[in-house]
Amino acid sequence: MRLQGRSAEIVELVLENTAEEFGRSGYAGLRVDEIAARSGVNKTTIYRRWPTKDDLVLAALHWISPYKHPPNTGSMREDLLAMLRGMAEAASTPKGLAIYRAIQIERAQPAFEPLLARLKVELLASRQAIFDRAMERGELPSWTDGALVGEVCFAAAFLRIVTVGQKLDESFMQALVDLIIAGAKNVTPRPKDGA
Amino acid sequence: MRLQGRSAEIVELVLENTAEEFGRSGYAGLRVDEIAARSGVNKTTIYRRWPTKDDLVLAALHWISPYKHPPNTGSMREDLLAMLRGMAEAASTPKGLAIYRAIQIERAQPAFEPLLARLKVELLASRQAIFDRAMERGELPSWTDGALVGEVCFAAAFLRIVTVGQKLDESFMQALVDLIIAGAKNVTPRPKDGA
Repeated sequence: MRLQGRSAEIVELVLENTAEEFGRSGYAGLRVDEIAARSGVNKTTIYRRWPTKDDLVLAALHWISPYKHPPNTGSMREDLLAMLRGMAEAASTPKGLAIYRAIQIERAQPAFEPLLARLKVELLASRQAIFDRAMERGELPSWTDGALVGEVCFAAAFLRIVTVGQKLDESFMQALVDLIIAGAKNVTPRPKDGA
Repeated sequence: MRLQGRSAEIVELVLENTAEEFGRSGYAGLRVDEIAARSGVNKTTIYRRWPTKDDLVLAALHWISPYKHPPNTGSMREDLLAMLRGMAEAASTPKGLAIYRAIQIERAQPAFEPLLARLKVELLASRQAIFDRAMERGELPSWTDGALVGEVCFAAAFLRIVTVGQKLDESFMQALVDLIIAGAKNVTPRPKDGA
């Protein structure tokens, strides 16, 4: 069957349509049968590969995520810039920006929470890997709180893109990364809670 | 007239009701006649003091703003912590959080833009004053980009409160401020654009 041979293409089409529909209608408004119809496949074809709506939306958001292939350039500064440039690019089209905004708006929806939690684990792991390698290479002190440094760096970028609706320009990304790295290199270690 | 003598109280009541209604219904949904009715005053009483809906909403958001009286403690670290604690407190009630969220959601509304721009000018000036004084006292290099440092610091706090829905705890606020200050003190000056 022709469909069999084109299955990778069909997977991409379904994921693309899902991501786009998520950006337009949000999580609650997204209907698997509509995605199936728009993609020219049966609903069962979708459910065979992604048993639940959660699985489908997660796969779609993962597919379009700039963190899908976390950068590993050998330099913390370049890794962070690559992550930020990925965000900037992902949010540079109206479709991409709609998806970012939908993620933000959907946070309030209890039904979206389990999926958001899975996305977050992936995102945090991508960031943490950058700081772990930086500590191994001696670019950062061994006691660096990578979770905090990553949160602060990406919060500024996220807020600019999604909330303020501003583009991330190269000069902002570099100034942000340089500020964050200077902070991480020079901040005094904090006593552990309860220590 | 009794109303005359109680005018300060009435102003506060109108602003409180406006802020609350803004949190509940957003900018577009807020109706001055409803605020008047709830506050037990005539619509003309409101319009005499605040000629437009923009004026009223701006006054209300200013009235509840933690930046209304920017801190000036003599220490940059304490000033920043005071600003962050003000945000944390303002967002600690459901009503306060609703107002924060409404500001975020309303950003997309063209009608809200002029008002948001006025709020932003005030917020940025409050932050900038902290860094200007820090540079004067020699706590930061004279070429510090206070706008960037402030943006990065408050983005992380804002994102935690509004988007993630997490509380700002004291240990996070201190770690954030220490990271940002270490960055600002140690970052290498960037060449000016076009220089």
